[in-house]
Amino acid sequence: MSFIDLNSDLGESFGAWHMGDDATMLGIVTSANVACGFHAGDPAGILRTLKAAAEHGVSVGAHVSYPDLVGFGRRAMDIASDELTADVIYQIGALKGLAHTTGTRVRYVKPHGALYNTIAHDRRQAEAVIEAIRDVDASLVLMTLAGTPLVGWAREAGLNVAAEAFADRAYQRDGSLVSRREAGAVLHDGDQVAERMLRLVREGVIETIDGHDIALQADSICVHGDSPGAVTLAEAVRRRLTDSGVELKAFAGARS
Amino acid sequence: MSFIDLNSDLGESFGAWHMGDDATMLGIVTSANVACGFHAGDPAGILRTLKAAAEHGVSVGAHVSYPDLVGFGRRAMDIASDELTADVIYQIGALKGLAHTTGTRVRYVKPHGALYNTIAHDRRQAEAVIEAIRDVDASLVLMTLAGTPLVGWAREAGLNVAAEAFADRAYQRDGSLVSRREAGAVLHDGDQVAERMLRLVREGVIETIDGHDIALQADSICVHGDSPGAVTLAEAVRRRLTDSGVELKAFAGARS
Amino acid sequence: MSFIDLNSDLGESFGAWHMGDDATMLGIVTSANVACGFHAGDPAGILRTLKAAAEHGVSVGAHVSYPDLVGFGRRAMDIASDELTADVIYQIGALKGLAHTTGTRVRYVKPHGALYNTIAHDRRQAEAVIEAIRDVDASLVLMTLAGTPLVGWAREAGLNVAAEAFADRAYQRDGSLVSRREAGAVLHDGDQVAERMLRLVREGVIETIDGHDIALQADSICVHGDSPGAVTLAEAVRRRLTDSGVELKAFAGARS
Amino acid sequence: MSFIDLNSDLGESFGAWHMGDDATMLGIVTSANVACGFHAGDPAGILRTLKAAAEHGVSVGAHVSYPDLVGFGRRAMDIASDELTADVIYQIGALKGLAHTTGTRVRYVKPHGALYNTIAHDRRQAEAVIEAIRDVDASLVLMTLAGTPLVGWAREAGLNVAAEAFADRAYQRDGSLVSRREAGAVLHDGDQVAERMLRLVREGVIETIDGHDIALQADSICVHGDSPGAVTLAEAVRRRLTDSGVELKAFAGARS
Repeated sequence: MSFIDLNSDLGESFGAWHMGDDATMLGIVTSANVACGFHAGDPAGILRTLKAAAEHGVSVGAHVSYPDLVGFGRRAMDIASDELTADVIYQIGALKGLAHTTGTRVRYVKPHGALYNTIAHDRRQAEAVIEAIRDVDASLVLMTLAGTPLVGWAREAGLNVAAEAFADRAYQRDGSLVSRREAGAVLHDGDQVAERMLRLVREGVIETIDGHDIALQADSICVHGDSPGAVTLAEAVRRRLTDSGVELKAFAGARS
Repeated sequence: MSFIDLNSDLGESFGAWHMGDDATMLGIVTSANVACGFHAGDPAGILRTLKAAAEHGVSVGAHVSYPDLVGFGRRAMDIASDELTADVIYQIGALKGLAHTTGTRVRYVKPHGALYNTIAHDRRQAEAVIEAIRDVDASLVLMTLAGTPLVGWAREAGLNVAAEAFADRAYQRDGSLVSRREAGAVLHDGDQVAERMLRLVREGVIETIDGHDIALQADSICVHGDSPGAVTLAEAVRRRLTDSGVELKAFAGARS
Repeated sequence: MSFIDLNSDLGESFGAWHMGDDATMLGIVTSANVACGFHAGDPAGILRTLKAAAEHGVSVGAHVSYPDLVGFGRRAMDIASDELTADVIYQIGALKGLAHTTGTRVRYVKPHGALYNTIAHDRRQAEAVIEAIRDVDASLVLMTLAGTPLVGWAREAGLNVAAEAFADRAYQRDGSLVSRREAGAVLHDGDQVAERMLRLVREGVIETIDGHDIALQADSICVHGDSPGAVTLAEAVRRRLTDSGVELKAFAGARS
Repeated sequence: MSFIDLNSDLGESFGAWHMGDDATMLGIVTSANVACGFHAGDPAGILRTLKAAAEHGVSVGAHVSYPDLVGFGRRAMDIASDELTADVIYQIGALKGLAHTTGTRVRYVKPHGALYNTIAHDRRQAEAVIEAIRDVDASLVLMTLAGTPLVGWAREAGLNVAAEAFADRAYQRDGSLVSRREAGAVLHDGDQVAERMLRLVREGVIETIDGHDIALQADSICVHGDSPGAVTLAEAVRRRLTDSGVELKAFAGARS
């Protein structure tokens, strides 16, 4: 019997501003990428999300970011390596502290937004993030996009890596995502998306935007919860997988 | 033979802005109250201070604050209890993470500025801070002003408390500090200050601004390092104490 | 024929976070209190709201706040007078600059949240805000709660004042609002609220929570737009007033 | 008789952190690039600098930046055009408001740090800044590095441009600055620097790092005040120029 992890970005409210339906998503996913205050998340809000994640037995990851609240961490930033390393340690440490008080713990690290995209290919910044994780807790798993250079760099450095696929995104033949600026980049049909993910889990294959099958090894599937449509699609993926006998479980364990 | 701890606020630079002479002060004090990013301290700067503290074998405390960078944490703030608790956990967690990477660890918590003053007497906010410390790491010692209600509240809650005296401040008969707005509130004469601190350690007594001796039980003496004059005064206190056979050592241990 | 102004808080989104239904509210109100970046509002978002306000011919006010993004400006803060004055000038100036590019201009200033509540009664902070307005543009009208000491202080200082009433709040006999912590503080029935506001405009009278009529002189009525229910209530007030022949127009003019 | 402007970055303190010797520099320069809160400068501190600039009859410019306090605006940032435009308008507006209360006004705009470097060559971001200036006040002069593409783009768009040279920097043959990472990039000898600047003013020529003379047309010379050595060098430049009969006056006028 096969199994897979489902992850989603949570804890992305900030102060008086709400974002996402954390309560519902925690009933769907097995891993929660929790914001750490640099792109989203104030401490009290993060704590509420962590408590809910602990109650649902969902595995917790640190969703670390550039310091960019107003840009939601989506602005590429030319930051010095030592500053990036310290920023990542700071965020992981803060989340570890908050998680400890809820009886759970941080099991992995998923870079967010522009940092996610940059370190997939930029070795200098990638090394800074890898160093942060190794220094603060070498048992933490790094979650990143399947097929990027970062996967190799992190493994060389001795980190465990979880590769993820995106449920609602179209793929190119080299395994990269079709840019959001291009037509067809984002998939909206629940049945189609669910079917693609089932095939990914069972066969290790995904169909590209131009109709070819490519091999894709994924430990986790990323689903979104920032709109009612996104939640519906996440539910469709979950139902299709479990109905087909795929077990959903966190790649990094849970229920500490 | 008697002993005492000397503590000082460190790590209070921020980005391009420098404050204090951390390198020199780490050769003088036995405990370093390290800023956690809410009133001062960016992650890379905090990390540098922690590395230096680890090298000097100086004990590290989390200098937690209200979220108020522009006001340097000196503005009293009416913050909800759950938000204050989460803010304190977040800061302690972040500092723990950074400290871990330098081979040292956080041993105590000293609230900063307006938070320090408020929780000395405001039970609601005090309870929020106490809860944060207990939840994140009950072995952390709370450092606060000798003689305040907070000392009792924290001990009732099961926390260890380190009471501190201020080397350069005048005292009133009830053991409180003379307000900085009043004449004579701040002492500048190194010999006088050193003599007062020696007497405090040996006899448990300090002379008030109006010439009476009062009993004062202190586990630590706070000295400042934010100006050349402050550093000179701190050195005078250290020299006088050690020359008189008082051992200087961290109340909370060090050299993990 | 009688007339009144309807005002609402707008421009309170921040970066990726949305708040309120500005587009709909700009079709209801005659004055828009626009956030200036200290409790809410990033420059690009503020600019969008200002453009829409200009298109609707809605009068624009600067909704100035303490610097407190995470607390949405709702935390009382003990800030020095010169810092508060400079903060208010900075916010008004920023909004003036943005408004100018959209072909409209800032006509009044409404303090937000904790600042609104504090300066209604705290003379030191009130003077700091009054000084800011006089210094930056003495033609700006100060909008505040009818019946508070601030009204008198501002008029003594030569400022024009617009007194406002809250559509959905219960009143006490002294003209102050019933605290939100008490039962019945917030009114939800659209018909009742609309009727109260019509009577306020026509008779200058409002019924208190304990059933007495008190005189209340208001230049503007504050309605909210932060939930679908709030928008419906605002629409009910507008309809009832216009159906009864009350003209809705900005106290401070518009359509520059 | 020839003349030139001397400009320097001022108002770069933030809250409790001090930077630069504004008081002394205002006695040396004729134009002050004043921080607007995005890379440095809190409103009260900016106001103090503006008051002093007004007293000295020094011309004021808005030193606008990316939103990056912790990185002091030195991190290149991939920001959307509409967000950059709004950010620049916001900063100029805020400074205009503060300046107005001190009896002076903003006469030019100088982008800071990474924004300065980026828009010198990146047309998309350059257009966003140009649009901001035109929209908020088309009479504002744009100050930028002599010889960059930005000079042409801004003039095409109808803006007045002031080209500046850097007193303490080495130049390459194409008129660009030698990177700070290379040896000899920064000049420290007061006599040499003063001599170079005198020649620049009189002959419109500067000697490159490899010993060639190139033509350089400058309206202003940038000097620094962030260290005692920098202040001394700025004084040397001023003295040499005035002793040689060069008049120092703001390119954008002053004493409103």
